[in-house]
Amino acid sequence: MRIALAQINTILADFTYNRNKILEMAQQALQKKCDLVVFPECTLFGYLPFDLLERADVVKEQEREFKNLVKLLPAEIGVIVGLITKNPHKKGRPYFNSAALISKNKIHQKFNKQILPTGDVFDEARFIESGDFSKNYFEWKGRKFFLTICEDIWGWEDKNGKSPYKENPLARVKPKKTDLIINLSASPYYVGKMKRREYMTKKTAQYFKAPIMYANLVGGQDEIIFDGSSYVMDPSGKKLLTCLSFQEDMNVFELETEKAWNTNPATTEISDLHKALVLGIQDFCQKTGIQKAHLGLSGGIDSALVAALAVDALGPNHVMGFALPGPFSSDESLDLAKALANNLQIEMKKIDINPIYERALGQFSEAFDLGDFGITHENLQSRLRGLSLMAYANKENSMLLTTGNKSEMATGYATLYGDMCGGLAPIADLTKKQVFELCRYYNQETEVIPVGILNREPTAELRPNQRDQDSLPPYDLLDQSVISLVEDSSAVRTTTDRWLLPKLMKTEFKRWQAPPILKVSAHSFGRGRRYPIAHRAQEVFLKKSK
Amino acid sequence: MRIALAQINTILADFTYNRNKILEMAQQALQKKCDLVVFPECTLFGYLPFDLLERADVVKEQEREFKNLVKLLPAEIGVIVGLITKNPHKKGRPYFNSAALISKNKIHQKFNKQILPTGDVFDEARFIESGDFSKNYFEWKGRKFFLTICEDIWGWEDKNGKSPYKENPLARVKPKKTDLIINLSASPYYVGKMKRREYMTKKTAQYFKAPIMYANLVGGQDEIIFDGSSYVMDPSGKKLLTCLSFQEDMNVFELETEKAWNTNPATTEISDLHKALVLGIQDFCQKTGIQKAHLGLSGGIDSALVAALAVDALGPNHVMGFALPGPFSSDESLDLAKALANNLQIEMKKIDINPIYERALGQFSEAFDLGDFGITHENLQSRLRGLSLMAYANKENSMLLTTGNKSEMATGYATLYGDMCGGLAPIADLTKKQVFELCRYYNQETEVIPVGILNREPTAELRPNQRDQDSLPPYDLLDQSVISLVEDSSAVRTTTDRWLLPKLMKTEFKRWQAPPILKVSAHSFGRGRRYPIAHRAQEVFLKKSK
Repeated sequence: MRIALAQINTILADFTYNRNKILEMAQQALQKKCDLVVFPECTLFGYLPFDLLERADVVKEQEREFKNLVKLLPAEIGVIVGLITKNPHKKGRPYFNSAALISKNKIHQKFNKQILPTGDVFDEARFIESGDFSKNYFEWKGRKFFLTICEDIWGWEDKNGKSPYKENPLARVKPKKTDLIINLSASPYYVGKMKRREYMTKKTAQYFKAPIMYANLVGGQDEIIFDGSSYVMDPSGKKLLTCLSFQEDMNVFELETEKAWNTNPATTEISDLHKALVLGIQDFCQKTGIQKAHLGLSGGIDSALVAALAVDALGPNHVMGFALPGPFSSDESLDLAKALANNLQIEMKKIDINPIYERALGQFSEAFDLGDFGITHENLQSRLRGLSLMAYANKENSMLLTTGNKSEMATGYATLYGDMCGGLAPIADLTKKQVFELCRYYNQETEVIPVGILNREPTAELRPNQRDQDSLPPYDLLDQSVISLVEDSSAVRTTTDRWLLPKLMKTEFKRWQAPPILKVSAHSFGRGRRYPIAHRAQEVFLKKSK
Repeated sequence: MRIALAQINTILADFTYNRNKILEMAQQALQKKCDLVVFPECTLFGYLPFDLLERADVVKEQEREFKNLVKLLPAEIGVIVGLITKNPHKKGRPYFNSAALISKNKIHQKFNKQILPTGDVFDEARFIESGDFSKNYFEWKGRKFFLTICEDIWGWEDKNGKSPYKENPLARVKPKKTDLIINLSASPYYVGKMKRREYMTKKTAQYFKAPIMYANLVGGQDEIIFDGSSYVMDPSGKKLLTCLSFQEDMNVFELETEKAWNTNPATTEISDLHKALVLGIQDFCQKTGIQKAHLGLSGGIDSALVAALAVDALGPNHVMGFALPGPFSSDESLDLAKALANNLQIEMKKIDINPIYERALGQFSEAFDLGDFGITHENLQSRLRGLSLMAYANKENSMLLTTGNKSEMATGYATLYGDMCGGLAPIADLTKKQVFELCRYYNQETEVIPVGILNREPTAELRPNQRDQDSLPPYDLLDQSVISLVEDSSAVRTTTDRWLLPKLMKTEFKRWQAPPILKVSAHSFGRGRRYPIAHRAQEVFLKKSK
C-alpha cells in the first residue's frame, strides 16, 4: 500500500482555498498511484479556529464546502482530512475536532479527537467536545489502521512520570494488530519541540507495535508557526520518512517495505529558527492581505534583524526602512542604518523628529510642569517615532513591524505606543543572544548585517550617552533569567532573577497591549501566557528576597 | 445554627491581606455568636489567578499563609474558606480549586471543585485538576451540609435542554438529607447575570431539597467585576437572605428559622451598572497602586461619562481632565468640556495640539507624500492627543483612561495608539445607548453631565463638519447589531448586521492591542473573547450577503 503524507498550509476559515488545496494534493497523490492520502488536523477549517467557532454560520459554511469536497475528490483514492463537525447532542460543547476518511465520494468513516489541549496557546475545551477514540480503528484495502488527532497521543507521562492528564485515555484503548497509526496534527513550532514530539510518537508506536504517521500542519497563524516537519516513525524511534520544514511538502510511504520516496537533509536549529520567523511574517501578511511592511532602523541589532527577516519574507521592494533621528541620535546610528538598508537593498526614508519633539515639549509645558529631563522626555521621543511610522502605515497601507526582543519585553524596557507600535512583533520571543546568533547566521557568507551594528554597544539613544547596560543587567545574565523565569517559570535563583521578577510582574500592563508576537519558544509573551495585571504577587517575591 | 455569609473583596496574590480580612470577618461572626462563617471562592488566593498558577513559589506562599490562618483563627467557630491546594499526584494538573472547613485550629475537612469552567473569561482547566465533589457532604454541629464551588452547580441543562457539559456530574451525586447546600463562588457580574444564577441555584436547591447559600466574591479584578449579591435561596426560588451588591457585606442566617438578620432593598439595573463600573475603576487602581487618573474631555458624551465614573471611583481631586483642541475642534466642544469639569469639580488643563500637528505634517511630508487630507491626518490628530495624555501619565504617574464605547470598538471606529491609549477602558463594553442611559441616570437629580453634551450630535472632530453618522449607521441600529453579533454571536439578519460583520472581523488587530476592558455584558471585547486576526471568515459573510 502506498500512502501520501500531504503537509499543506491552510488558511483559517478560507474553506474554498483549503478545499481546492486538498483537491490538488489528492490529484497529485492519485497520479503517484497512492491508495491513501493523509492531511493535517483541521485541514478544511484551518487551525487554530479560536472563538470563530462561536459563529455557527462560519461552521455551516465549512460543512457546505465539505459536501463539495466529498463530491469533487477523485473516487479512486482514500483521503483523510481534518474538519470541524457538529456535536449532534444538545449537551456538551457544540463541535468535535474530527477527521474523515473519504473514498468513492462518500464518507467511509468519521473520527473525533478525544484529548483536548488547554495549556499555553490552546483553548480547545471552549467549543470542542471530547470524542471517543476507542472507535478509531479502521480497515482500508485490507490494511489495519488506528487514527488519532494531535493531542490524542500526548497523554503519556514524561520521563519524570509527569503528565497534565490524570490518566492517559490512549493507554485504555486495547492495542489490536495495526499496520499504521495515523496522527493528524497542528503542532506549533518552538526551538526544541521536535524532541517532545518524537517522545510522544515513539511511545504511541511502541504501545500499538506499529509505525506512526505524524502529519503536521505547516504555516503561520497569528502568533503561531506550524513547522510541518511531518514524519513516519517506527516503534524503535527510527524515522522512516521525513517531510520538509516550514514549507508545503508531500512525501510517499510504502507500507510494506517501510520506504519513503524522498529523503530530506537534516536541518540546523538556527536555520529552522530563521525559517520559522520568515514564514511567520510571510503568512501573517499573506493571510491578512498585507503586501508591504516598514520599520524604524535605529542602527541597532534588533531592528537590523527584523529588517533582514522582513526582506526574506516580503522581498526588498516591499520593505521600507525609516531613520528617525532625535535629539540624542548619533551620526553613527544613521550611517549604520544606511549601510543596513544598502546591504538589504531596501529603500530608507528619514524623518527628523527633533522639531516635533521641541514643539510638543513647548505645548505640554504650557499645560503642566515637565520638570527635569526624565522618563517623560524619553518616552515622548519613542512615541514620536511610533507616531511617524504609523502615519506612513496609514498613508501607504503598509504594516509597521516592532523590533523589541524578549529580554527587553520581560523587563518592560519598551515604550507603550512608542517602539511597541506595530501590527506584528517578529522577534519579541527571542533573547538578545538569539538575536545576535541570527545576525551572525545572516553574515555567514557575506555581510548582510553591518559588522558595525554587531559590534556596537546596545543603546536606546533616548538620553545623552545612554547605554542599555546602565538600566539593564548584562544581556547574557538577563537572557538566562528570562529563560528561567518566563519559559520555565522557575523560582528565583540568581541576583538577576531577583532583579527581573518584580519588573516582569509589574510590567504586564504593557505586554497586555502588545501586538501579536511570533512564538518560537516553549512559552512566549502573547496569548499563550495569561497573567493578570492587578495582583500583588511581586510583593511575595520581594518579601522572599529580603 | 447561626451561619455568617462573609462577602469580602480579596486582592489577588496578597495572601497577608486576604488572611487578615478573613480573620477580621471570622472575629465579627464570632461576636455575633455564629457557629459557622462562609467565604467566597479562592478566598485566600484571590480570583482569577490566571497563569500566576504556573509559579510554584506563589502557591507555596499561599500555603504558608494558610497554615498561619489555621493557627490564628478563633477556635470556637467553623470557618469555610476557598484556596488553591496542591494536587499530590504527579499526573493531572498541578492544583485543585479547593475549600476547607477549619475549626479548633485544625482542618476539619477539605473539598475540591469538580466542574472547571473554560468559557468566556475562564481558563480553569489550564492549571486546575478536577476534583470529586461526591465526597463533599459534611456534618457540623449536628447539621448536614453539602459543599460546592462555583461552576459545580452550573452543570444543569437550561430551559432549552442545552448545557456545555455532556452530563451534569452533580446529578450523579446521590441526594441525601441535607440542611444546607453551600456554594463558594466568584461569579463575574454582567447585566442580566442574576437570572442565570437564580436558575442554577434553584435547580440545585430542588435537587437536594434544601436551601442553598450562594457566597459570591465582590470586587474588581482587571476586566472582571464580581458583584457579590450573595444570597440564600430555598427550593421554591425564594431568597431567604441577600447581601449588598458591589461592596463588602456580612449577613447572618438562622438555619432553623430560615431567617436573615439584615434585609437589603432591591436595586435597579442602571444603578447596578453604575456601581459596577465605579467599583471596576476603583479596584483596578487600588489593586495596582494607582492613585490618580486623567482623560481627554472632547465635549462628547463618552468622555463625559468616563470622567463622572472616575470621579465617583477616585474622588474629584484625583481626576484630571484635558481639553486637547485640534484643527477641527469647535468652541462648543471646549465650552462643554469646561462645563463638565466644573460640574464634576475636577481640574481641567488644555493642550493645543495644532502647532504639533502642523509641525508633524511638515516633517512627514519631507519623507513621503501625504496626499490629500485623509485617514492619515485624522489618525495623526488622535495620536497626538494620546501622546500628550501619555506624557502627563509619565510625568504625574497618573493613569490615562480610554473613553471608547463598545459600539465604536466593534466597528473599529477608534485609533490605535490614539484614543485607544490608556491603562483601562471603563466603558468599552457599553453600547452607545447604555452610555446615554448612564448619563441620564447621573442627571436624575441635578445636572452632572451638561445637557449640551447629551443633546449634541456625536462627532470625532477629526475633519471639517464630521459627524459619526457619516461613517456609522444610526447608533440605535448599530447598538442592536453589536448586541446580536458580539454578545449573542447570531447570524446576520439586518442590513446593519451585514454592514458591521466584516468590519468587526477585520478590525480584530486593533482590539488585540486594547487595554483591559471592564466587562459588564455577557460577552465583552477583552480576554474573554479570543478571535484570530489572520483568517478569511469575513469573506464567508460577504459571499453570503451577496
